[in-house]
Amino acid sequence: MQTIKALCFDVFGTVVDWRSGVAGQARAFLLGHGRPEVDAFEFADRWRGQYQPAMEACRSQGRPYTRLDVLHRENLDLVLASYGLDPAGMSAAELMVLSHAWRQLDPWPDSAAGLHRLKRGFLIAPLSNGNLALLAAMAKRSGLPWDLILGAEVTREYKPAPGAYLGTVDILGLRPDEVCLVAAHNDDLAAARRCGLATAFVLRPTEHGPCQTTDLGPEQDWDFVAQDLNDLAQRLGC
Amino acid sequence: MQTIKALCFDVFGTVVDWRSGVAGQARAFLLGHGRPEVDAFEFADRWRGQYQPAMEACRSQGRPYTRLDVLHRENLDLVLASYGLDPAGMSAAELMVLSHAWRQLDPWPDSAAGLHRLKRGFLIAPLSNGNLALLAAMAKRSGLPWDLILGAEVTREYKPAPGAYLGTVDILGLRPDEVCLVAAHNDDLAAARRCGLATAFVLRPTEHGPCQTTDLGPEQDWDFVAQDLNDLAQRLGC
Repeated sequence: MQTIKALCFDVFGTVVDWRSGVAGQARAFLLGHGRPEVDAFEFADRWRGQYQPAMEACRSQGRPYTRLDVLHRENLDLVLASYGLDPAGMSAAELMVLSHAWRQLDPWPDSAAGLHRLKRGFLIAPLSNGNLALLAAMAKRSGLPWDLILGAEVTREYKPAPGAYLGTVDILGLRPDEVCLVAAHNDDLAAARRCGLATAFVLRPTEHGPCQTTDLGPEQDWDFVAQDLNDLAQRLGC
Repeated sequence: MQTIKALCFDVFGTVVDWRSGVAGQARAFLLGHGRPEVDAFEFADRWRGQYQPAMEACRSQGRPYTRLDVLHRENLDLVLASYGLDPAGMSAAELMVLSHAWRQLDPWPDSAAGLHRLKRGFLIAPLSNGNLALLAAMAKRSGLPWDLILGAEVTREYKPAPGAYLGTVDILGLRPDEVCLVAAHNDDLAAARRCGLATAFVLRPTEHGPCQTTDLGPEQDWDFVAQDLNDLAQRLGC
Protein backbone atom coordinates (compact mmCIF):
# COMPACT_ATOMS: atom_id res chain seq x y z
CA MET A 1 0.00 0.00 0.00
CA GLN A 2 2.93 2.30 0.74
CA THR A 3 4.15 1.75 -2.81
CA ILE A 4 0.98 2.92 -4.55
CA LYS A 5 1.02 6.53 -5.70
CA ALA A 6 -1.82 6.69 -8.21
CA LEU A 7 -5.25 5.08 -8.38
CA CYS A 8 -6.67 4.64 -11.88
CA PHE A 9 -10.34 3.84 -12.21
CA ASP A 10 -12.52 1.97 -14.57
CA VAL A 11 -15.56 4.24 -14.92
CA PHE A 12 -18.57 2.59 -16.63
CA GLY A 13 -20.00 0.27 -13.98
CA THR A 14 -17.29 0.97 -11.39
CA VAL A 15 -17.85 4.69 -10.77
CA VAL A 16 -21.14 5.35 -12.59
CA ASP A 17 -24.35 3.37 -13.12
CA TRP A 18 -24.55 3.27 -16.92
CA ARG A 19 -27.59 0.97 -17.16
CA SER A 20 -30.05 3.10 -15.17
CA GLY A 21 -28.76 6.31 -16.75
CA VAL A 22 -29.01 5.12 -20.33
CA ALA A 23 -32.39 3.47 -19.69
CA GLY A 24 -33.76 6.71 -18.27
CA GLN A 25 -32.80 8.71 -21.35
CA ALA A 26 -33.90 5.92 -23.70
CA ARG A 27 -37.32 5.69 -22.02
CA ALA A 28 -38.10 9.34 -22.78
CA PHE A 29 -36.83 8.93 -26.34
CA LEU A 30 -38.91 5.79 -26.94
CA LEU A 31 -42.06 7.43 -25.57
CA GLY A 32 -41.46 10.38 -27.91
CA HIS A 33 -41.28 7.98 -30.83
CA GLY A 34 -44.46 6.08 -29.92
CA ARG A 35 -42.72 2.97 -28.63
CA PRO A 36 -43.68 2.80 -24.94
CA GLU A 37 -43.71 -1.01 -25.00
CA VAL A 38 -39.95 -1.27 -25.51
CA ASP A 39 -38.15 -2.17 -22.27
CA ALA A 40 -35.71 0.71 -21.75
CA PHE A 41 -33.32 -1.46 -19.72
CA GLU A 42 -33.19 -3.97 -22.54
CA PHE A 43 -32.53 -1.07 -24.91
CA ALA A 44 -29.61 -0.02 -22.69
CA ASP A 45 -28.30 -3.59 -22.60
CA ARG A 46 -28.45 -3.90 -26.40
CA TRP A 47 -26.60 -0.59 -26.78
CA ARG A 48 -23.95 -1.71 -24.30
CA GLY A 49 -23.80 -5.03 -26.15
CA GLN A 50 -22.35 -3.23 -29.17
CA TYR A 51 -19.56 -1.72 -27.07
CA GLN A 52 -16.99 -4.52 -27.14
CA PRO A 53 -17.46 -5.37 -30.85
CA ALA A 54 -16.99 -1.70 -31.79
CA MET A 55 -13.78 -1.42 -29.75
CA GLU A 56 -12.59 -4.77 -31.06
CA ALA A 57 -12.61 -3.28 -34.57
CA CYS A 58 -10.05 -0.75 -33.29
CA ARG A 59 -8.12 -3.23 -31.14
CA SER A 60 -7.58 -5.99 -33.68
CA GLN A 61 -9.34 -5.38 -36.97
CA GLY A 62 -7.31 -2.49 -38.30
CA ARG A 63 -9.72 0.37 -37.63
CA PRO A 64 -7.76 3.39 -36.37
CA TYR A 65 -8.51 4.53 -32.82
CA THR A 66 -11.97 6.10 -32.86
CA ARG A 67 -13.43 7.97 -29.88
CA LEU A 68 -16.09 6.25 -27.81
CA ASP A 69 -18.48 9.19 -28.39
CA VAL A 70 -18.34 8.27 -32.09
CA LEU A 71 -18.72 4.53 -31.46
CA HIS A 72 -21.72 5.19 -29.18
CA ARG A 73 -23.38 7.24 -31.92
CA GLU A 74 -22.72 4.58 -34.56
CA ASN A 75 -23.95 1.83 -32.26
CA LEU A 76 -27.15 3.76 -31.55
CA ASP A 77 -28.12 3.38 -35.20
CA LEU A 78 -27.72 -0.40 -34.91
CA VAL A 79 -29.83 -0.54 -31.76
CA LEU A 80 -32.59 1.63 -33.18
CA ALA A 81 -32.69 -0.55 -36.30
CA SER A 82 -32.96 -3.66 -34.12
CA TYR A 83 -36.24 -2.22 -32.81
CA GLY A 84 -37.46 -1.32 -36.30
CA LEU A 85 -36.75 2.37 -35.75
CA ASP A 86 -35.10 4.24 -38.65
CA PRO A 87 -32.52 6.80 -37.49
CA ALA A 88 -32.52 8.34 -40.99
CA GLY A 89 -35.95 9.74 -40.21
CA MET A 90 -34.84 11.42 -36.95
CA SER A 91 -33.07 14.71 -36.36
CA ALA A 92 -29.29 14.56 -35.99
CA ALA A 93 -29.53 16.81 -32.94
CA GLU A 94 -32.01 14.52 -31.18
CA LEU A 95 -29.86 11.46 -31.87
CA MET A 96 -26.79 13.27 -30.55
CA VAL A 97 -28.62 14.17 -27.33
CA LEU A 98 -29.55 10.53 -26.80
CA SER A 99 -26.03 9.41 -27.66
CA HIS A 100 -24.71 11.81 -25.03
CA ALA A 101 -26.68 9.91 -22.39
CA TRP A 102 -23.30 8.23 -21.81
CA ARG A 103 -21.86 11.61 -20.79
CA GLN A 104 -24.61 12.14 -18.21
CA LEU A 105 -24.55 8.99 -16.12
CA ASP A 106 -25.10 9.26 -12.39
CA PRO A 107 -22.36 8.00 -10.08
CA TRP A 108 -23.11 5.22 -7.60
CA PRO A 109 -24.13 6.81 -4.27
CA ASP A 110 -20.66 6.35 -2.71
CA SER A 111 -18.56 7.39 -5.72
CA ALA A 112 -18.14 11.16 -5.32
CA ALA A 113 -17.56 11.00 -1.56
CA GLY A 114 -15.21 8.04 -1.91
CA LEU A 115 -13.17 9.76 -4.61
CA HIS A 116 -12.85 12.90 -2.49
CA ARG A 117 -11.39 10.76 0.31
CA LEU A 118 -9.08 8.80 -1.98
CA LYS A 119 -7.85 12.02 -3.59
CA ARG A 120 -6.31 13.04 -0.25
CA GLY A 121 -3.86 10.16 -0.37
CA PHE A 122 -3.37 9.41 -4.04
CA LEU A 123 -3.38 10.87 -7.50
CA ILE A 124 -6.75 9.78 -8.93
CA ALA A 125 -7.61 9.46 -12.62
CA PRO A 126 -9.97 7.48 -14.82
CA LEU A 127 -8.35 4.74 -16.89
CA SER A 128 -11.47 4.30 -18.97
CA ASN A 129 -12.34 3.50 -22.55
CA GLY A 130 -14.38 6.71 -22.54
CA ASN A 131 -12.97 9.68 -24.42
CA LEU A 132 -11.76 12.84 -22.72
CA ALA A 133 -14.74 15.10 -23.50
CA LEU A 134 -17.17 12.40 -22.39
CA LEU A 135 -15.38 11.80 -19.08
CA ALA A 136 -14.90 15.52 -18.42
CA ALA A 137 -18.59 16.29 -19.01
CA MET A 138 -19.58 13.41 -16.73
CA ALA A 139 -17.21 14.52 -13.97
CA LYS A 140 -18.28 18.15 -14.16
CA ARG A 141 -21.98 17.25 -13.95
CA SER A 142 -21.51 15.03 -10.89
CA GLY A 143 -18.54 16.54 -9.08
CA LEU A 144 -16.13 13.66 -9.60
CA PRO A 145 -12.83 15.27 -8.48
CA TRP A 146 -10.32 13.67 -10.84
CA ASP A 147 -6.77 15.03 -10.67
CA LEU A 148 -6.53 14.41 -14.41
CA ILE A 149 -8.33 12.31 -16.98
CA LEU A 150 -6.46 9.47 -18.64
CA GLY A 151 -7.55 6.45 -20.65
CA ALA A 152 -8.06 5.26 -24.20
CA GLU A 153 -7.94 8.65 -25.90
CA VAL A 154 -4.56 9.49 -24.38
CA THR A 155 -2.92 6.13 -25.04
CA ARG A 156 -4.98 5.53 -28.21
CA GLU A 157 -5.46 1.94 -27.04
CA TYR A 158 -8.66 0.38 -25.74
CA LYS A 159 -8.54 -1.79 -22.64
CA PRO A 160 -7.76 -4.63 -22.21
CA ALA A 161 -4.88 -4.06 -24.66
CA PRO A 162 -1.65 -3.91 -22.60
CA GLY A 163 -0.79 -0.51 -24.10
CA ALA A 164 -3.80 1.03 -22.39
CA TYR A 165 -2.38 0.15 -18.94
CA LEU A 166 1.33 0.50 -19.66
CA GLY A 167 0.87 3.72 -21.61
CA THR A 168 -0.98 5.21 -18.65
CA VAL A 169 1.78 4.16 -16.26
CA ASP A 170 4.35 5.74 -18.57
CA ILE A 171 2.44 9.03 -18.78
CA LEU A 172 2.30 9.15 -14.98
CA GLY A 173 6.08 8.67 -14.83
CA LEU A 174 5.62 5.80 -12.37
CA ARG A 175 6.43 2.09 -12.21
CA PRO A 176 3.53 -0.34 -12.83
CA ASP A 177 3.45 -1.41 -9.17
CA GLU A 178 3.02 2.24 -8.15
CA VAL A 179 -0.31 2.38 -10.02
CA CYS A 180 -3.44 0.53 -8.84
CA LEU A 181 -6.36 -0.16 -11.14
CA VAL A 182 -9.71 0.08 -9.37
CA ALA A 183 -12.47 -1.82 -11.18
CA ALA A 184 -15.66 -3.82 -10.68
CA HIS A 185 -14.63 -6.22 -13.45
CA ASN A 186 -12.35 -9.19 -12.92
CA ASP A 187 -11.23 -9.26 -16.56
CA ASP A 188 -10.06 -5.65 -16.45
CA LEU A 189 -8.12 -6.34 -13.25
CA ALA A 190 -6.59 -9.48 -14.73
CA ALA A 191 -5.30 -7.52 -17.73
CA ALA A 192 -3.89 -4.82 -15.43
CA ARG A 193 -2.17 -7.45 -13.27
CA ARG A 194 -0.55 -9.02 -16.32
CA CYS A 195 1.01 -5.59 -16.90
CA GLY A 196 2.32 -5.43 -13.32
CA LEU A 197 -0.21 -2.96 -11.87
CA ALA A 198 -1.70 -3.32 -8.41
CA THR A 199 -5.39 -4.21 -8.35
CA ALA A 200 -8.49 -3.28 -6.34
CA PHE A 201 -11.85 -4.97 -6.87
CA VAL A 202 -14.98 -3.01 -6.02
CA LEU A 203 -18.27 -4.88 -5.79
CA ARG A 204 -21.04 -3.51 -8.03
CA PRO A 205 -23.62 -6.29 -7.85
CA THR A 206 -26.39 -4.45 -9.72
CA GLU A 207 -24.42 -2.96 -12.63
CA HIS A 208 -26.29 -5.32 -14.96
CA GLY A 209 -29.55 -5.17 -13.02
CA PRO A 210 -31.07 -7.22 -10.20
CA CYS A 211 -30.28 -10.59 -11.85
CA GLN A 212 -26.57 -9.98 -12.45
CA THR A 213 -24.54 -13.19 -12.72
CA THR A 214 -21.03 -11.85 -13.34
CA ASP A 215 -18.44 -10.09 -11.18
CA LEU A 216 -20.29 -10.88 -7.96
CA GLY A 217 -16.99 -11.45 -6.21
CA PRO A 218 -13.22 -11.45 -6.69
CA GLU A 219 -11.96 -14.22 -9.01
CA GLN A 220 -8.30 -13.75 -8.06
CA ASP A 221 -6.52 -12.63 -4.91
CA TRP A 222 -6.65 -8.96 -5.86
CA ASP A 223 -4.52 -6.67 -3.72
CA PHE A 224 -7.64 -5.02 -2.32
CA VAL A 225 -11.30 -6.02 -2.27
CA ALA A 226 -13.87 -3.41 -1.25
CA GLN A 227 -17.63 -3.10 -0.98
CA ASP A 228 -17.60 0.41 -2.46
CA LEU A 229 -15.29 3.42 -2.82
CA ASN A 230 -15.75 4.59 0.76
CA ASP A 231 -14.76 1.13 1.93
CA LEU A 232 -11.74 1.28 -0.38
CA ALA A 233 -10.77 4.65 1.10
CA GLN A 234 -10.91 3.17 4.59
CA ARG A 235 -8.80 0.18 3.56
CA LEU A 236 -6.23 2.50 1.99
CA GLY A 237 -6.07 4.68 5.08
CA CYS A 238 -7.70 7.78 3.56
CA MET B 1 -19.16 35.34 -25.03
CA GLN B 2 -22.33 33.21 -25.33
CA THR B 3 -20.54 31.07 -27.90
CA ILE B 4 -17.60 30.10 -25.70
CA LYS B 5 -17.94 26.74 -23.95
CA ALA B 6 -14.37 25.96 -22.91
CA LEU B 7 -11.48 28.06 -21.62
CA CYS B 8 -8.02 26.64 -22.29
CA PHE B 9 -5.11 28.15 -20.41
CA ASP B 10 -1.48 28.70 -21.00
CA VAL B 11 0.08 27.76 -17.66
CA PHE B 12 3.75 28.81 -17.30
CA GLY B 13 3.59 32.55 -16.73
CA THR B 14 -0.19 32.82 -17.11
CA VAL B 15 -1.37 30.67 -14.19
CA VAL B 16 1.86 30.07 -12.26
CA ASP B 17 4.96 32.16 -11.50
CA TRP B 18 7.70 29.94 -12.91
CA ARG B 19 10.58 32.39 -12.34
CA SER B 20 10.22 32.81 -8.58
CA GLY B 21 9.48 29.13 -8.08
CA VAL B 22 12.45 27.85 -10.04
CA ALA B 23 14.76 30.46 -8.52
CA GLY B 24 13.73 29.41 -5.02
CA GLN B 25 14.59 25.77 -5.64
CA ALA B 26 17.76 26.69 -7.53
CA ARG B 27 18.96 28.93 -4.69
CA ALA B 28 18.90 26.05 -2.20
CA PHE B 29 20.61 23.77 -4.70
CA LEU B 30 23.35 26.30 -5.47
CA LEU B 31 24.02 26.91 -1.78
CA GLY B 32 24.32 23.16 -1.27
CA HIS B 33 26.93 23.04 -4.01
CA GLY B 34 28.99 25.93 -2.67
CA ARG B 35 27.88 28.46 -5.28
CA PRO B 36 26.06 31.15 -3.28
CA GLU B 37 27.28 33.89 -5.63
CA VAL B 38 25.19 32.63 -8.56
CA ASP B 39 22.05 34.74 -9.08
CA ALA B 40 19.21 32.22 -8.76
CA PHE B 41 16.89 34.34 -10.93
CA GLU B 42 19.49 34.37 -13.68
CA PHE B 43 19.80 30.60 -13.25
CA ALA B 44 16.02 30.32 -13.73
CA ASP B 45 16.17 32.57 -16.79
CA ARG B 46 18.96 30.50 -18.37
CA TRP B 47 16.99 27.30 -17.75
CA ARG B 48 13.86 28.84 -19.28
CA GLY B 49 16.02 30.06 -22.15
CA GLN B 50 16.60 26.45 -23.22
CA TYR B 51 12.84 25.81 -23.35
CA GLN B 52 12.05 27.02 -26.87
CA PRO B 53 15.15 25.50 -28.53
CA ALA B 54 14.37 22.11 -26.95
CA MET B 55 10.76 22.18 -28.16
CA GLU B 56 11.86 23.44 -31.57
CA ALA B 57 13.83 20.22 -32.01
CA CYS B 58 10.49 18.37 -31.68
CA ARG B 59 8.49 20.92 -33.69
CA SER B 60 10.69 21.19 -36.75
CA GLN B 61 13.93 19.25 -36.47
CA GLY B 62 12.61 15.72 -36.59
CA ARG B 63 12.90 14.79 -32.92
CA PRO B 64 9.83 12.77 -31.90
CA TYR B 65 7.55 14.37 -29.31
CA THR B 66 9.39 14.25 -25.98
CA ARG B 67 7.76 15.17 -22.66
CA LEU B 68 8.63 18.50 -21.10
CA ASP B 69 9.74 16.74 -17.88
CA VAL B 70 12.45 15.09 -19.99
CA LEU B 71 13.41 18.30 -21.79
CA HIS B 72 13.64 20.15 -18.44
CA ARG B 73 15.98 17.47 -17.12
CA GLU B 74 18.18 17.57 -20.24
CA ASN B 75 18.25 21.37 -20.21
CA LEU B 76 19.29 21.37 -16.56
CA ASP B 77 22.55 19.68 -17.56
CA LEU B 78 23.22 22.50 -20.04
CA VAL B 79 22.52 25.19 -17.46
CA LEU B 80 24.67 23.56 -14.79
CA ALA B 81 27.53 23.25 -17.29
CA SER B 82 27.16 26.94 -18.19
CA TYR B 83 28.01 27.70 -14.54
CA GLY B 84 30.94 25.28 -14.52
CA LEU B 85 28.98 22.70 -12.50
CA ASP B 86 29.31 19.07 -13.61
CA PRO B 87 26.02 17.12 -13.35
CA ALA B 88 27.93 13.85 -13.76
CA GLY B 89 29.26 14.37 -10.24
CA MET B 90 25.81 14.83 -8.69
CA SER B 91 23.23 12.25 -7.62
CA ALA B 92 20.50 11.44 -10.15
CA ALA B 93 17.88 11.76 -7.41
CA GLU B 94 19.03 15.25 -6.44
CA LEU B 95 18.99 16.40 -10.07
CA MET B 96 15.49 14.97 -10.53
CA VAL B 97 14.25 16.85 -7.46
CA LEU B 98 15.60 20.11 -8.86
CA SER B 99 14.19 19.33 -12.30
CA HIS B 100 10.78 18.79 -10.70
CA ALA B 101 10.86 22.40 -9.49
CA TRP B 102 8.72 22.96 -12.61
CA ARG B 103 6.06 20.71 -11.10
CA GLN B 104 5.95 22.75 -7.90
CA LEU B 105 5.44 26.28 -9.06
CA ASP B 106 3.18 28.55 -7.06
CA PRO B 107 0.16 30.06 -8.79
CA TRP B 108 -0.19 33.83 -9.03
CA PRO B 109 -2.27 35.03 -6.05
CA ASP B 110 -5.50 35.29 -8.09
CA SER B 111 -5.16 32.04 -10.06
CA ALA B 112 -6.86 29.42 -7.86
CA ALA B 113 -9.77 31.67 -6.89
CA GLY B 114 -10.19 32.91 -10.46
CA LEU B 115 -10.21 29.37 -11.85
CA HIS B 116 -12.83 28.30 -9.29
CA ARG B 117 -15.07 31.14 -10.51
CA LEU B 118 -14.44 30.45 -14.20
CA LYS B 119 -15.15 26.74 -13.68
CA ARG B 120 -18.76 27.60 -12.81
CA GLY B 121 -19.42 28.88 -16.30
CA PHE B 122 -17.01 27.01 -18.53
CA LEU B 123 -15.09 23.81 -18.98
CA ILE B 124 -11.54 24.74 -17.91
CA ALA B 125 -8.35 22.97 -18.97
CA PRO B 126 -4.68 23.76 -19.44
CA LEU B 127 -3.50 24.00 -23.04
CA SER B 128 0.12 23.98 -22.00
CA ASN B 129 3.37 22.62 -23.31
CA GLY B 130 3.76 20.92 -19.92
CA ASN B 131 3.20 17.17 -19.79
CA LEU B 132 0.29 15.55 -18.01
CA ALA B 133 2.11 14.32 -14.89
CA LEU B 134 3.79 17.71 -14.45
CA LEU B 135 0.52 19.64 -14.75
CA ALA B 136 -1.39 17.19 -12.52
CA ALA B 137 1.23 17.39 -9.77
CA MET B 138 1.23 21.19 -9.97
CA ALA B 139 -2.59 21.35 -9.82
CA LYS B 140 -2.84 18.92 -6.91
CA ARG B 141 -0.27 20.82 -4.89
CA SER B 142 -1.98 24.18 -5.37
CA GLY B 143 -5.65 23.31 -5.75
CA LEU B 144 -6.03 24.36 -9.37
CA PRO B 145 -9.46 22.88 -10.18
CA TRP B 146 -9.05 21.82 -13.82
CA ASP B 147 -11.93 19.87 -15.35
CA LEU B 148 -9.34 17.95 -17.35
CA ILE B 149 -5.75 18.43 -18.43
CA LEU B 150 -5.00 18.91 -22.11
CA GLY B 151 -1.99 20.18 -24.01
CA ALA B 152 1.13 19.02 -25.77
CA GLU B 153 1.19 15.47 -24.44
CA VAL B 154 -2.35 14.77 -25.64
CA THR B 155 -1.97 16.32 -29.09
CA ARG B 156 1.74 15.43 -29.30
CA GLU B 157 2.36 18.89 -30.73
CA TYR B 158 4.07 21.79 -28.99
CA LYS B 159 2.53 25.26 -29.19
CA PRO B 160 2.58 27.34 -31.33
CA ALA B 161 2.15 24.53 -33.90
CA PRO B 162 -1.45 24.72 -35.20
CA GLY B 163 -2.04 21.08 -34.28
CA ALA B 164 -1.66 21.93 -30.60
CA TYR B 165 -4.69 24.25 -30.76
CA LEU B 166 -6.79 22.43 -33.36
CA GLY B 167 -6.12 19.02 -31.83
CA THR B 168 -7.35 20.32 -28.49
CA VAL B 169 -10.51 21.73 -30.08
CA ASP B 170 -11.12 18.39 -31.76
CA ILE B 171 -10.70 16.44 -28.52
CA LEU B 172 -13.23 18.73 -26.85
CA GLY B 173 -15.71 18.04 -29.67
CA LEU B 174 -16.20 21.79 -30.16
CA ARG B 175 -15.75 24.33 -32.93
CA PRO B 176 -12.65 26.59 -32.69
CA ASP B 177 -14.78 29.64 -31.86
CA GLU B 178 -16.29 27.75 -28.92
CA VAL B 179 -12.83 27.52 -27.30
CA CYS B 180 -11.00 30.53 -25.85
CA LEU B 181 -7.27 30.50 -25.18
CA VAL B 182 -6.33 32.43 -22.04
CA ALA B 183 -2.69 33.53 -22.05
CA ALA B 184 -0.31 36.24 -20.90
CA HIS B 185 1.63 35.97 -24.17
CA ASN B 186 0.66 37.76 -27.36
CA ASP B 187 2.41 35.23 -29.60
CA ASP B 188 0.47 32.32 -28.11
CA LEU B 189 -2.80 34.21 -28.60
CA ALA B 190 -1.86 35.12 -32.17
CA ALA B 191 -1.27 31.45 -33.02
CA ALA B 192 -4.58 30.48 -31.42
CA ARG B 193 -6.43 33.21 -33.35
CA ARG B 194 -4.94 31.97 -36.63
CA CYS B 195 -6.62 28.64 -35.82
CA GLY B 196 -9.97 30.35 -35.19
CA LEU B 197 -10.02 30.22 -31.40
CA ALA B 198 -11.30 33.06 -29.24
CA THR B 199 -8.61 34.87 -27.24
CA ALA B 200 -8.21 36.36 -23.76
CA PHE B 201 -5.09 38.27 -22.73
CA VAL B 202 -4.19 38.32 -19.04
CA LEU B 203 -1.58 40.81 -17.87
CA ARG B 204 1.35 39.28 -16.00
CA PRO B 205 3.79 42.20 -15.89
CA THR B 206 6.35 40.54 -13.59
CA GLU B 207 6.57 37.07 -15.15
CA HIS B 208 10.11 37.92 -16.25
CA GLY B 209 10.93 40.00 -13.17
CA PRO B 210 10.63 43.68 -12.31
CA CYS B 211 12.26 44.87 -15.55
CA GLN B 212 10.01 42.94 -17.95
CA THR B 213 9.82 44.48 -21.42
CA THR B 214 7.49 42.06 -23.24
CA ASP B 215 3.77 41.33 -23.07
CA LEU B 216 3.05 44.45 -21.03
CA GLY B 217 -0.18 44.93 -22.96
CA PRO B 218 -2.34 43.51 -25.72
CA GLU B 219 -0.77 43.70 -29.19
CA GLN B 220 -3.99 42.85 -31.04
CA ASP B 221 -7.67 43.44 -30.32
CA TRP B 222 -8.04 40.22 -28.35
CA ASP B 223 -11.61 39.22 -27.54
CA PHE B 224 -10.99 39.84 -23.84
CA VAL B 225 -8.29 41.71 -21.94
CA ALA B 226 -8.06 41.21 -18.18
CA GLN B 227 -5.85 42.30 -15.32
CA ASP B 228 -5.91 38.83 -13.74
CA LEU B 229 -8.10 35.70 -13.60
CA ASN B 230 -10.60 37.22 -11.15
CA ASP B 231 -11.01 40.15 -13.52
CA LEU B 232 -11.49 37.70 -16.41
CA ALA B 233 -14.16 35.86 -14.40
CA GLN B 234 -15.99 39.14 -13.85
CA ARG B 235 -15.79 40.03 -17.55
CA LEU B 236 -17.14 36.62 -18.49
CA GLY B 237 -20.02 36.89 -16.01
CA CYS B 238 -18.82 34.19 -13.61
